[in-house]
Amino acid sequence: MSDLFEYTLRLGDDALIAAQRTAEWIAAAPQLEEDVALGNIGLDQLGQARSLLQYAGQVEGVGRSEDDLAYFRNERDFRNLQLCELPSGDFAHTIARLLYFATYQHLLYEELRMSSDETLAGVAGKAVKEVAYHVDHATQWVLRLGDGTEESHRRMQSGLDAMWPYTAEMFASDDLVRRLAGIAVDPSTFADEWSRRITQVIDESTCSRPESSYQHDGGRDGRHTEHLGYLLAELQHVARSHPGATW
Amino acid sequence: MSDLFEYTLRLGDDALIAAQRTAEWIAAAPQLEEDVALGNIGLDQLGQARSLLQYAGQVEGVGRSEDDLAYFRNERDFRNLQLCELPSGDFAHTIARLLYFATYQHLLYEELRMSSDETLAGVAGKAVKEVAYHVDHATQWVLRLGDGTEESHRRMQSGLDAMWPYTAEMFASDDLVRRLAGIAVDPSTFADEWSRRITQVIDESTCSRPESSYQHDGGRDGRHTEHLGYLLAELQHVARSHPGATW
Repeated sequence: MSDLFEYTLRLGDDALIAAQRTAEWIAAAPQLEEDVALGNIGLDQLGQARSLLQYAGQVEGVGRSEDDLAYFRNERDFRNLQLCELPSGDFAHTIARLLYFATYQHLLYEELRMSSDETLAGVAGKAVKEVAYHVDHATQWVLRLGDGTEESHRRMQSGLDAMWPYTAEMFASDDLVRRLAGIAVDPSTFADEWSRRITQVIDESTCSRPESSYQHDGGRDGRHTEHLGYLLAELQHVARSHPGATW
Repeated sequence: MSDLFEYTLRLGDDALIAAQRTAEWIAAAPQLEEDVALGNIGLDQLGQARSLLQYAGQVEGVGRSEDDLAYFRNERDFRNLQLCELPSGDFAHTIARLLYFATYQHLLYEELRMSSDETLAGVAGKAVKEVAYHVDHATQWVLRLGDGTEESHRRMQSGLDAMWPYTAEMFASDDLVRRLAGIAVDPSTFADEWSRRITQVIDESTCSRPESSYQHDGGRDGRHTEHLGYLLAELQHVARSHPGATW
Protein backbone atom coordinates (compact mmCIF):
# COMPACT_ATOMS: atom_id res chain seq x y z
CA MET A 1 0.00 0.00 0.00
CA SER A 2 1.63 3.24 -1.11
CA ASP A 3 2.06 6.10 1.34
CA LEU A 4 0.10 8.49 -0.82
CA PHE A 5 -2.82 6.06 -1.10
CA GLU A 6 -2.85 5.60 2.65
CA TYR A 7 -2.66 9.33 3.32
CA THR A 8 -5.44 10.17 0.88
CA LEU A 9 -7.62 7.49 2.45
CA ARG A 10 -7.17 9.08 5.85
CA LEU A 11 -8.49 12.40 4.65
CA GLY A 12 -11.22 10.84 2.52
CA ASP A 13 -12.44 8.55 5.29
CA ASP A 14 -12.57 11.42 7.76
CA ALA A 15 -14.81 13.34 5.39
CA LEU A 16 -16.98 10.35 4.48
CA ILE A 17 -17.68 9.26 8.04
CA ALA A 18 -18.26 12.84 9.16
CA ALA A 19 -20.75 13.27 6.31
CA GLN A 20 -22.71 10.20 7.44
CA ARG A 21 -23.02 11.50 10.96
CA THR A 22 -24.02 14.96 9.78
CA ALA A 23 -26.64 13.49 7.46
CA GLU A 24 -28.31 11.77 10.42
CA TRP A 25 -29.31 15.19 11.67
CA ILE A 26 -31.07 16.29 8.53
CA ALA A 27 -34.26 14.61 9.65
CA ALA A 28 -34.07 15.78 13.24
CA ALA A 29 -32.51 19.20 13.72
CA PRO A 30 -34.20 21.56 16.17
CA GLN A 31 -35.06 24.12 13.46
CA LEU A 32 -35.83 23.89 9.75
CA GLU A 33 -33.13 26.48 9.11
CA GLU A 34 -30.65 24.24 10.93
CA ASP A 35 -31.84 21.24 8.92
CA VAL A 36 -30.81 23.13 5.80
CA ALA A 37 -27.49 24.28 7.27
CA LEU A 38 -26.50 20.80 8.43
CA GLY A 39 -27.65 19.39 5.11
CA ASN A 40 -25.32 21.71 3.29
CA ILE A 41 -22.44 20.92 5.63
CA GLY A 42 -23.00 17.19 5.13
CA LEU A 43 -22.99 17.65 1.36
CA ASP A 44 -19.74 19.61 1.54
CA GLN A 45 -18.15 16.79 3.51
CA LEU A 46 -19.50 14.20 1.11
CA GLY A 47 -18.11 16.16 -1.84
CA GLN A 48 -14.68 16.21 -0.21
CA ALA A 49 -14.93 12.47 0.45
CA ARG A 50 -15.77 11.77 -3.18
CA SER A 51 -12.83 13.76 -4.53
CA LEU A 52 -10.40 12.19 -2.08
CA LEU A 53 -11.58 8.60 -2.47
CA GLN A 54 -11.63 8.94 -6.24
CA TYR A 55 -8.03 10.14 -6.12
CA ALA A 56 -7.08 7.37 -3.66
CA GLY A 57 -8.41 4.81 -6.12
CA GLN A 58 -6.44 6.41 -8.92
CA VAL A 59 -3.23 6.42 -6.86
CA GLU A 60 -3.74 2.81 -5.85
CA GLY A 61 -3.98 1.92 -9.51
CA VAL A 62 -5.86 -1.36 -9.30
CA GLY A 63 -9.15 -0.05 -10.60
CA ARG A 64 -11.06 0.67 -7.39
CA SER A 65 -13.56 3.50 -7.72
CA GLU A 66 -14.75 5.89 -5.02
CA ASP A 67 -17.78 3.62 -4.59
CA ASP A 68 -15.63 0.50 -4.18
CA LEU A 69 -13.66 2.25 -1.47
CA ALA A 70 -16.74 3.59 0.31
CA TYR A 71 -18.97 0.54 0.10
CA PHE A 72 -16.73 -2.50 -0.13
CA ARG A 73 -14.09 -2.01 2.53
CA ASN A 74 -14.40 -3.52 5.98
CA GLU A 75 -14.20 -1.66 9.24
CA ARG A 76 -10.53 -2.42 9.81
CA ASP A 77 -9.66 -0.87 6.46
CA PHE A 78 -11.13 2.51 7.35
CA ARG A 79 -8.59 5.14 8.35
CA ASN A 80 -10.82 7.85 9.79
CA LEU A 81 -10.43 9.53 13.15
CA GLN A 82 -12.52 7.99 15.91
CA LEU A 83 -13.92 11.48 16.55
CA CYS A 84 -15.78 11.27 13.23
CA GLU A 85 -17.49 7.97 13.97
CA LEU A 86 -18.81 8.72 17.48
CA PRO A 87 -22.61 8.79 17.64
CA SER A 88 -24.05 12.25 17.13
CA GLY A 89 -25.88 12.20 20.46
CA ASP A 90 -27.39 15.44 21.64
CA PHE A 91 -27.43 18.42 19.27
CA ALA A 92 -24.81 20.14 21.44
CA HIS A 93 -22.56 17.07 21.10
CA THR A 94 -22.85 17.34 17.33
CA ILE A 95 -21.93 21.02 17.46
CA ALA A 96 -18.95 20.34 19.75
CA ARG A 97 -17.64 17.73 17.34
CA LEU A 98 -18.15 20.04 14.39
CA LEU A 99 -16.21 22.80 16.16
CA TYR A 100 -13.28 20.48 16.92
CA PHE A 101 -13.25 18.70 13.57
CA ALA A 102 -13.89 21.64 11.24
CA THR A 103 -11.22 23.73 12.99
CA TYR A 104 -8.81 20.82 12.48
CA GLN A 105 -9.81 20.45 8.82
CA HIS A 106 -9.47 24.17 8.26
CA LEU A 107 -5.88 24.27 9.53
CA LEU A 108 -5.06 21.11 7.60
CA TYR A 109 -6.50 22.22 4.27
CA GLU A 110 -4.97 25.67 4.59
CA GLU A 111 -1.54 24.08 4.48
CA LEU A 112 -2.41 21.29 2.09
CA ARG A 113 -3.14 23.94 -0.54
CA MET A 114 0.66 24.25 -0.79
CA SER A 115 1.17 20.51 -1.30
CA SER A 116 3.47 19.51 -4.16
CA ASP A 117 0.76 17.01 -5.09
CA GLU A 118 -1.45 19.04 -7.39
CA THR A 119 -4.60 16.99 -6.86
CA LEU A 120 -4.44 17.22 -3.08
CA ALA A 121 -3.65 20.93 -3.36
CA GLY A 122 -6.69 21.40 -5.60
CA VAL A 123 -9.06 19.51 -3.29
CA ALA A 124 -7.75 21.51 -0.33
CA GLY A 125 -8.18 24.82 -2.15
CA LYS A 126 -11.89 24.16 -2.66
CA ALA A 127 -12.47 22.51 0.73
CA VAL A 128 -10.82 25.22 2.81
CA LYS A 129 -13.60 27.67 1.93
CA GLU A 130 -16.27 25.12 2.81
CA VAL A 131 -14.81 24.23 6.19
CA ALA A 132 -14.30 27.91 7.04
CA TYR A 133 -18.09 28.14 6.93
CA HIS A 134 -18.43 24.98 9.05
CA VAL A 135 -16.16 26.50 11.71
CA ASP A 136 -18.18 29.68 11.67
CA HIS A 137 -21.47 27.79 11.95
CA ALA A 138 -20.24 25.66 14.86
CA THR A 139 -18.77 28.72 16.60
CA GLN A 140 -22.08 30.61 16.42
CA TRP A 141 -23.89 27.69 18.04
CA VAL A 142 -21.30 27.17 20.79
CA LEU A 143 -21.60 30.85 21.71
CA ARG A 144 -25.38 30.80 21.54
CA LEU A 145 -25.82 27.64 23.58
CA GLY A 146 -22.95 28.25 25.99
CA ASP A 147 -24.10 31.79 26.71
CA GLY A 148 -27.83 30.92 26.57
CA THR A 149 -30.00 29.36 29.24
CA GLU A 150 -28.71 27.34 32.17
CA GLU A 151 -29.87 24.18 30.44
CA SER A 152 -28.28 25.00 27.07
CA HIS A 153 -25.02 25.91 28.83
CA ARG A 154 -25.03 22.59 30.68
CA ARG A 155 -25.59 20.66 27.46
CA MET A 156 -22.94 22.58 25.54
CA GLN A 157 -20.40 21.93 28.27
CA SER A 158 -21.35 18.26 28.27
CA GLY A 159 -20.84 18.09 24.48
CA LEU A 160 -17.46 19.77 24.65
CA ASP A 161 -16.39 17.39 27.42
CA ALA A 162 -17.69 14.25 25.71
CA MET A 163 -15.81 14.83 22.46
CA TRP A 164 -12.61 16.04 24.07
CA PRO A 165 -10.97 12.62 24.67
CA TYR A 166 -10.99 12.08 20.90
CA THR A 167 -9.19 15.26 19.90
CA ALA A 168 -5.50 14.38 20.48
CA GLU A 169 -5.67 11.73 17.77
CA MET A 170 -6.07 14.47 15.17
CA PHE A 171 -2.57 15.79 15.84
CA ALA A 172 -0.60 12.53 16.01
CA SER A 173 2.42 12.64 13.76
CA ASP A 174 3.84 9.40 12.35
CA ASP A 175 6.36 8.01 9.88
CA LEU A 176 3.87 8.17 7.06
CA VAL A 177 3.44 11.95 7.10
CA ARG A 178 7.17 12.40 7.61
CA ARG A 179 7.95 10.29 4.55
CA LEU A 180 5.46 12.39 2.60
CA ALA A 181 7.09 15.71 3.54
CA GLY A 182 6.13 18.35 0.99
CA ILE A 183 3.06 16.36 -0.04
CA ALA A 184 1.26 15.69 3.26
CA VAL A 185 0.73 18.03 6.20
CA ASP A 186 2.10 16.94 9.56
CA PRO A 187 -0.86 17.72 11.85
CA SER A 188 1.35 18.07 14.93
CA THR A 189 2.58 21.36 13.46
CA PHE A 190 -0.76 23.07 13.97
CA ALA A 191 -1.84 21.50 17.26
CA ASP A 192 -1.02 24.66 19.20
CA GLU A 193 -2.92 26.89 16.81
CA TRP A 194 -5.93 24.56 17.01
CA SER A 195 -5.81 24.69 20.78
CA ARG A 196 -5.59 28.48 20.74
CA ARG A 197 -8.60 28.84 18.46
CA ILE A 198 -10.72 26.34 20.36
CA THR A 199 -9.88 27.89 23.71
CA GLN A 200 -10.89 31.30 22.45
CA VAL A 201 -14.33 30.08 21.34
CA ILE A 202 -14.91 28.12 24.54
CA ASP A 203 -13.88 31.07 26.72
CA GLU A 204 -16.17 33.42 24.87
CA SER A 205 -19.04 30.95 25.23
CA THR A 206 -18.62 31.02 29.04
CA CYS A 207 -18.06 27.26 29.00
CA SER A 208 -14.91 25.76 30.46
CA ARG A 209 -12.15 24.17 28.49
CA PRO A 210 -12.37 20.41 29.16
CA GLU A 211 -9.77 19.03 31.54
CA SER A 212 -6.98 16.87 30.19
CA SER A 213 -8.12 13.30 30.16
CA TYR A 214 -7.29 9.90 28.76
CA GLN A 215 -7.05 10.25 24.97
CA HIS A 216 -8.20 7.55 22.57
CA ASP A 217 -6.42 6.68 19.38
CA GLY A 218 -6.17 3.97 16.73
CA GLY A 219 -8.35 5.22 13.88
CA ARG A 220 -5.40 5.80 11.56
CA ASP A 221 -4.43 2.13 12.02
CA GLY A 222 -7.95 0.81 11.49
CA ARG A 223 -8.78 0.36 15.18
CA HIS A 224 -12.21 1.82 15.77
CA THR A 225 -14.92 2.20 18.37
CA GLU A 226 -17.84 -0.21 18.22
CA HIS A 227 -19.90 2.53 16.59
CA LEU A 228 -18.20 2.42 13.20
CA GLY A 229 -19.57 -1.04 12.42
CA TYR A 230 -23.15 0.12 12.77
CA LEU A 231 -22.47 3.23 10.73
CA LEU A 232 -20.92 1.17 7.93
CA ALA A 233 -23.82 -1.28 7.96
CA GLU A 234 -26.14 1.64 7.28
CA LEU A 235 -23.86 3.19 4.67
CA GLN A 236 -23.04 0.02 2.80
CA HIS A 237 -26.08 -2.20 2.90
CA VAL A 238 -27.78 -1.04 -0.29
CA ALA A 239 -24.62 -1.18 -2.40
CA ARG A 240 -23.62 -4.54 -0.92
CA SER A 241 -26.99 -6.12 -1.49
CA HIS A 242 -26.58 -5.47 -5.23
CA PRO A 243 -22.88 -5.94 -5.91
CA GLY A 244 -22.05 -5.07 -9.48
CA ALA A 245 -25.64 -4.01 -10.20
CA THR A 246 -26.00 -1.53 -13.00
CA TRP A 247 -26.91 1.21 -10.58
CA MET B 1 -58.90 28.64 9.08
CA SER B 2 -58.58 30.78 5.97
CA ASP B 3 -58.57 29.19 2.54
CA LEU B 4 -55.18 30.67 1.67
CA PHE B 5 -53.64 29.36 4.89
CA GLU B 6 -55.03 25.91 4.21
CA TYR B 7 -53.85 25.93 0.60
CA THR B 8 -50.35 27.08 1.47
CA LEU B 9 -50.14 24.39 4.15
CA ARG B 10 -50.96 21.74 1.56
CA LEU B 11 -48.06 22.75 -0.62
CA GLY B 12 -45.72 23.30 2.30
CA ASP B 13 -46.53 19.98 3.94
CA ASP B 14 -46.03 18.10 0.66
CA ALA B 15 -42.55 19.59 0.38
CA LEU B 16 -41.68 19.07 4.05
CA ILE B 17 -42.70 15.43 4.21
CA ALA B 18 -41.08 14.69 0.85
CA ALA B 19 -37.85 16.27 2.13
CA GLN B 20 -37.85 14.00 5.19
CA ARG B 21 -38.20 10.89 3.09
CA THR B 22 -35.52 12.03 0.66
CA ALA B 23 -33.15 12.79 3.53
CA GLU B 24 -33.43 9.21 4.75
CA TRP B 25 -31.55 8.15 1.64
CA ILE B 26 -28.58 10.39 2.18
CA ALA B 27 -26.95 7.79 4.39
CA ALA B 28 -27.80 4.83 2.20
CA ALA B 29 -27.85 5.55 -1.52
CA PRO B 30 -26.23 2.98 -3.82
CA GLN B 31 -23.54 5.42 -5.02
CA LEU B 32 -21.77 8.39 -3.46
CA GLU B 33 -22.76 10.48 -6.47
CA GLU B 34 -26.39 9.56 -5.81
CA ASP B 35 -25.98 10.43 -2.13
CA VAL B 36 -25.04 13.92 -3.24
CA ALA B 37 -27.85 14.16 -5.81
CA LEU B 38 -30.53 13.05 -3.34
CA GLY B 39 -29.04 15.32 -0.73
CA ASN B 40 -29.46 18.28 -3.03
CA ILE B 41 -32.99 17.26 -3.95
CA GLY B 42 -33.90 16.94 -0.28
CA LEU B 43 -32.51 20.39 0.43
CA ASP B 44 -34.49 21.88 -2.45
CA GLN B 45 -37.67 20.36 -1.03
CA LEU B 46 -36.82 21.59 2.44
CA GLY B 47 -36.22 25.08 1.10
CA GLN B 48 -39.65 25.06 -0.56
CA ALA B 49 -41.19 23.83 2.69
CA ARG B 50 -39.58 26.64 4.67
CA SER B 51 -40.81 29.36 2.31
CA LEU B 52 -44.32 27.95 2.20
CA LEU B 53 -44.69 27.30 5.91
CA GLN B 54 -43.28 30.70 6.75
CA TYR B 55 -45.88 32.26 4.45
CA ALA B 56 -48.63 30.06 5.89
CA GLY B 57 -47.77 31.35 9.35
CA GLN B 58 -47.88 34.92 8.10
CA VAL B 59 -51.25 34.40 6.41
CA GLU B 60 -52.67 32.76 9.53
CA GLY B 61 -51.65 35.83 11.50
CA VAL B 62 -51.50 34.38 15.00
CA GLY B 63 -47.73 34.36 15.28
CA ARG B 64 -46.87 30.80 14.31
CA SER B 65 -43.43 30.43 12.69
CA GLU B 66 -42.32 27.86 10.13
CA ASP B 67 -40.83 25.89 13.04
CA ASP B 68 -44.09 25.99 15.01
CA LEU B 69 -45.92 24.62 11.99
CA ALA B 70 -43.35 21.92 11.27
CA TYR B 71 -42.67 20.75 14.81
CA PHE B 72 -45.77 21.45 16.86
CA ARG B 73 -48.66 20.25 14.76
CA ASN B 74 -50.15 16.81 15.18
CA GLU B 75 -50.60 14.23 12.48
CA ARG B 76 -54.24 15.13 11.79
CA ASP B 77 -53.22 18.73 11.10
CA PHE B 78 -50.84 17.80 8.30
CA ARG B 79 -52.21 18.34 4.81
CA ASN B 80 -49.66 16.51 2.67
CA LEU B 81 -50.41 13.90 0.05
CA GLN B 82 -50.16 10.33 1.30
CA LEU B 83 -47.74 9.68 -1.56
CA CYS B 84 -45.16 11.83 0.22
CA GLU B 85 -45.34 9.98 3.52
CA LEU B 86 -45.05 6.40 2.25
CA PRO B 87 -41.85 4.67 3.39
CA SER B 88 -39.01 5.01 0.91
CA GLY B 89 -38.58 1.26 0.57
CA ASP B 90 -36.32 0.04 -2.18
CA PHE B 91 -34.27 2.57 -4.15
CA ALA B 92 -36.48 1.98 -7.20
CA HIS B 93 -39.55 2.79 -5.08
CA THR B 94 -37.96 6.08 -4.11
CA ILE B 95 -37.24 6.87 -7.75
CA ALA B 96 -40.80 5.98 -8.79
CA ARG B 97 -42.22 8.31 -6.16
CA LEU B 98 -39.85 11.07 -7.20
CA LEU B 99 -40.93 10.71 -10.83
CA TYR B 100 -44.62 10.90 -9.94
CA PHE B 101 -44.29 13.66 -7.36
CA ALA B 102 -41.75 15.90 -9.10
CA THR B 103 -43.72 15.76 -12.36
CA TYR B 104 -46.81 16.81 -10.39
CA GLN B 105 -44.92 19.61 -8.64
CA HIS B 106 -43.47 20.79 -11.92
CA LEU B 107 -46.88 21.15 -13.56
CA LEU B 108 -48.27 22.78 -10.43
CA TYR B 109 -45.49 25.32 -9.96
CA GLU B 110 -45.45 26.18 -13.65
CA GLU B 111 -48.99 27.48 -13.32
CA LEU B 112 -48.63 28.85 -9.82
CA ARG B 113 -46.05 31.30 -11.18
CA MET B 114 -49.04 33.16 -12.63
CA SER B 115 -50.90 33.29 -9.29
CA SER B 116 -52.31 36.66 -8.31
CA ASP B 117 -50.76 36.00 -4.90
CA GLU B 118 -47.29 37.43 -5.30
CA THR B 119 -45.66 35.36 -2.60
CA LEU B 120 -46.93 32.07 -3.97
CA ALA B 121 -45.96 33.17 -7.47
CA GLY B 122 -42.47 33.98 -6.24
CA VAL B 123 -42.00 30.67 -4.44
CA ALA B 124 -43.23 28.84 -7.54
CA GLY B 125 -40.90 30.76 -9.82
CA LYS B 126 -37.88 29.58 -7.87
CA ALA B 127 -39.16 26.07 -7.21
CA VAL B 128 -40.09 25.29 -10.79
CA LYS B 129 -36.44 25.25 -11.82
CA GLU B 130 -35.52 22.99 -8.92
CA VAL B 131 -38.24 20.44 -9.60
CA ALA B 132 -37.41 20.41 -13.33
CA TYR B 133 -34.07 18.97 -12.25
CA HIS B 134 -35.79 16.46 -9.94
CA VAL B 135 -37.96 15.25 -12.83
CA ASP B 136 -34.90 14.90 -15.02
CA HIS B 137 -32.99 13.00 -12.34
CA ALA B 138 -35.87 10.59 -11.69
CA THR B 139 -36.40 10.08 -15.42
CA GLN B 140 -32.76 9.14 -15.99
CA TRP B 141 -32.98 6.52 -13.26
CA VAL B 142 -36.28 5.05 -14.46
CA LEU B 143 -34.79 4.63 -17.93
CA ARG B 144 -31.54 3.20 -16.58
CA LEU B 145 -33.17 0.72 -14.21
CA GLY B 146 -36.14 -0.16 -16.43
CA ASP B 147 -33.92 -0.78 -19.43
CA GLY B 148 -31.08 -2.33 -17.39
CA THR B 149 -30.77 -5.87 -16.07
CA GLU B 150 -33.67 -8.23 -15.56
CA GLU B 151 -33.44 -7.61 -11.83
CA SER B 152 -33.33 -3.83 -12.09
CA HIS B 153 -36.29 -3.91 -14.49
CA ARG B 154 -38.28 -6.04 -12.06
CA ARG B 155 -37.55 -3.67 -9.20
CA MET B 156 -38.36 -0.56 -11.21
CA GLN B 157 -41.70 -2.04 -12.26
CA SER B 158 -42.42 -2.96 -8.68
CA GLY B 159 -41.67 0.61 -7.58
CA LEU B 160 -43.91 2.12 -10.24
CA ASP B 161 -46.72 -0.27 -9.27
CA ALA B 162 -46.37 0.27 -5.53
CA MET B 163 -46.65 4.06 -5.70
CA TRP B 164 -49.38 4.13 -8.33
CA PRO B 165 -52.40 3.78 -5.97
CA TYR B 166 -51.38 7.07 -4.35
CA THR B 167 -51.26 9.19 -7.50
CA ALA B 168 -54.93 10.07 -8.11
CA GLU B 169 -55.00 12.04 -4.85
CA MET B 170 -52.66 14.62 -6.41
CA PHE B 171 -55.31 15.67 -8.93
CA ALA B 172 -58.38 15.87 -6.72
CA SER B 173 -60.17 19.15 -7.12
CA ASP B 174 -62.25 20.54 -4.27
CA ASP B 175 -64.17 23.61 -3.13
CA LEU B 176 -61.06 25.13 -1.61
CA VAL B 177 -59.14 25.45 -4.87
CA ARG B 178 -62.28 26.61 -6.65
CA ARG B 179 -62.83 29.39 -4.10
CA LEU B 180 -59.20 30.41 -4.59
CA ALA B 181 -59.50 30.71 -8.38
CA GLY B 182 -56.74 32.98 -9.66
CA ILE B 183 -54.64 32.33 -6.57
CA ALA B 184 -54.48 28.53 -6.37
CA VAL B 185 -54.02 26.02 -9.15
CA ASP B 186 -56.73 23.43 -9.65
CA PRO B 187 -54.64 20.25 -10.04
CA SER B 188 -57.37 18.45 -12.01
CA THR B 189 -56.55 20.76 -14.92
CA PHE B 190 -53.18 19.17 -15.50
CA ALA B 191 -53.98 15.53 -14.72
CA ASP B 192 -53.99 14.57 -18.40
CA GLU B 193 -50.68 16.25 -19.08
CA TRP B 194 -49.16 14.49 -16.05
CA SER B 195 -50.45 11.18 -17.33
CA ARG B 196 -49.04 11.84 -20.79
CA ARG B 197 -45.58 12.69 -19.44
CA ILE B 198 -45.45 9.73 -17.06
CA THR B 199 -46.63 7.30 -19.73
CA GLN B 200 -43.92 8.51 -22.07
CA VAL B 201 -41.15 7.89 -19.52
CA ILE B 202 -42.53 4.49 -18.52
CA ASP B 203 -42.89 3.40 -22.16
CA GLU B 204 -39.35 4.43 -22.96
CA SER B 205 -38.06 2.55 -19.90
CA THR B 206 -39.64 -0.68 -21.25
CA CYS B 207 -41.68 -0.95 -18.03
CA SER B 208 -45.46 -1.16 -18.17
CA ARG B 209 -47.82 1.53 -17.07
CA PRO B 210 -49.41 0.29 -13.82
CA GLU B 211 -52.99 -0.95 -14.14
CA SER B 212 -55.79 1.12 -12.73
CA SER B 213 -56.32 0.16 -9.16
CA TYR B 214 -57.98 1.26 -5.96
CA GLN B 215 -56.81 4.80 -5.24
CA HIS B 216 -56.19 6.08 -1.72
CA ASP B 217 -57.01 9.57 -0.57
CA GLY B 218 -57.49 11.64 2.57
CA GLY B 219 -54.20 13.49 3.00
CA ARG B 220 -55.70 16.88 2.21
CA ASP B 221 -58.20 16.34 5.04
CA GLY B 222 -55.60 15.16 7.54
CA ARG B 223 -56.31 11.45 7.11
CA HIS B 224 -52.98 9.70 6.76
CA THR B 225 -51.37 6.28 6.55
CA GLU B 226 -49.86 4.84 9.71
CA HIS B 227 -46.42 5.84 8.43
CA LEU B 228 -46.81 9.58 8.98
CA GLY B 229 -46.85 9.21 12.76
CA TYR B 230 -43.43 7.56 12.78
CA LEU B 231 -42.05 10.13 10.38
CA LEU B 232 -43.29 12.99 12.55
CA ALA B 233 -41.88 11.39 15.69
CA GLU B 234 -38.47 11.46 14.04
CA LEU B 235 -38.91 14.97 12.67
CA GLN B 236 -40.33 16.52 15.80
CA HIS B 237 -38.71 14.84 18.78
CA VAL B 238 -35.75 17.18 19.23
CA ALA B 239 -37.77 20.36 18.94
CA ARG B 240 -40.52 18.99 21.21
CA SER B 241 -38.14 17.86 23.90
CA HIS B 242 -36.99 21.48 24.29
CA PRO B 243 -40.10 23.57 23.67
CA GLY B 244 -39.27 27.24 23.71
CA ALA B 245 -35.56 26.56 24.15
CA THR B 246 -33.26 29.21 22.81
CA TRP B 247 -32.19 26.98 19.97
